[in-house]
Amino acid sequence: MKDILQRLEELSITLPPKPTPLAAYSPAVRAENFIYVSGQLPIHDGQMTTGRVPDVVSLDEATELSSLCFLNALAAALPLLNENESLQLVQLQGFVQSAPDFYDHPAIIDGASTLALQILGERGRHARIAMGVSALPKNAPVEISCTFLAVPQRSPRFLGRYRWFERKF
Amino acid sequence: MKDILQRLEELSITLPPKPTPLAAYSPAVRAENFIYVSGQLPIHDGQMTTGRVPDVVSLDEATELSSLCFLNALAAALPLLNENESLQLVQLQGFVQSAPDFYDHPAIIDGASTLALQILGERGRHARIAMGVSALPKNAPVEISCTFLAVPQRSPRFLGRYRWFERKF
Amino acid sequence: MKDILQRLEELSITLPPKPTPLAAYSPAVRAENFIYVSGQLPIHDGQMTTGRVPDVVSLDEATELSSLCFLNALAAALPLLNENESLQLVQLQGFVQSAPDFYDHPAIIDGASTLALQILGERGRHARIAMGVSALPKNAPVEISCTFLAVPQRSPRFLGRYRWFERKF
Repeated sequence: MKDILQRLEELSITLPPKPTPLAAYSPAVRAENFIYVSGQLPIHDGQMTTGRVPDVVSLDEATELSSLCFLNALAAALPLLNENESLQLVQLQGFVQSAPDFYDHPAIIDGASTLALQILGERGRHARIAMGVSALPKNAPVEISCTFLAVPQRSPRFLGRYRWFERKF
Repeated sequence: MKDILQRLEELSITLPPKPTPLAAYSPAVRAENFIYVSGQLPIHDGQMTTGRVPDVVSLDEATELSSLCFLNALAAALPLLNENESLQLVQLQGFVQSAPDFYDHPAIIDGASTLALQILGERGRHARIAMGVSALPKNAPVEISCTFLAVPQRSPRFLGRYRWFERKF
Repeated sequence: MKDILQRLEELSITLPPKPTPLAAYSPAVRAENFIYVSGQLPIHDGQMTTGRVPDVVSLDEATELSSLCFLNALAAALPLLNENESLQLVQLQGFVQSAPDFYDHPAIIDGASTLALQILGERGRHARIAMGVSALPKNAPVEISCTFLAVPQRSPRFLGRYRWFERKF
């Protein structure tokens, strides 16, 4: 957990507070070593840009918002770790509220994927599902859902080695 | 398993029969302690209300139907438990066949989420993904997919304590 | 792993090369014994049929393409197995880029499900989620995502027994 917090500091990223569910569910649930995070909307300080991609929300804006969704997912997952554990991102599902003739969902979800790799390094390499849907809760342009695995925390020195691997991305 | 059946009886809920798949798949599959349930439609006694939300099927009706989907999911999962095991709901995915300008999917999926909490108590607290899609199989208004974890059954006395927690919902 | 390769040979199926991700993610990720495969499009030799079902791509064509998606998923999962392991298909999610009044998604996803049963036998019995979405990456007609479990490989004699079970499908 400390390794992730340290990495966020290096990247000058402030972790948002643990997200509040919109209804009768939890932000994240742990089952054995798997951590399932609820679908995250690009909410920041209680505010959210709304609208469909690309007519109301542009591709670039939506890409930025998808990385915000990932930060919210990270904030939801971290409290479920024990002191000496860290996170491996296993699967990321990305849903874009988009026009029926918009097919560039991968570019948008890359906002989340790229940030995951920046923060988690090799442990940020994930399987992914991306698609366009007709409508998202609260008229959100993008929604990201993550499945993490709780893994033993790396020693700082090992973290250094992984930084080398990151250059590949 | 008995703890869940007992709780259903307390709530005067009759569990539907194990759902029949529409095609070449299984109602539910167990992998280690995880139980993956196929997407459940609001079928009751072989019948199903059809149509889009909210123009054909109202929000209230769809909310009721989403709880029916959860019951079908429970009926699919229970046969995969051993005698001394019970279920923890880990993740719930809710898909609403809705108009492109309808954004209140969380209210509809709350039908399933609330019932999960009523039946499973603390073990019903789940991560959730909700969204609107353009069309569902058989023109269903809602589809719910669940991932459960098989956990040791609580003793009746412990069950009593959890009932206290449930008042929070 | 050898049992699956042998079965593919019996069925005269050539496994495609490991799929290339469209963006910053991996074709498949292993977490403990679970293998999460990224959403697969019906890409064959770098080419893909595009368009919506059923107006541009017919139901029969889409069904065929969904089995191609499954082959790509299999090709992504196999490299994550150890020598003496095999695959159990746990969950299959099928997304069809379809018209809002098209409700026969199960028939299309059966292309993938049936092939899974043919190749993996009893271990191909999976939980499934099927739905229609407004748009898929690259204008793909269908996208399939799989979760597998790495299981011990069966001996050839045991494989023979399972073939008997397959007649039921």
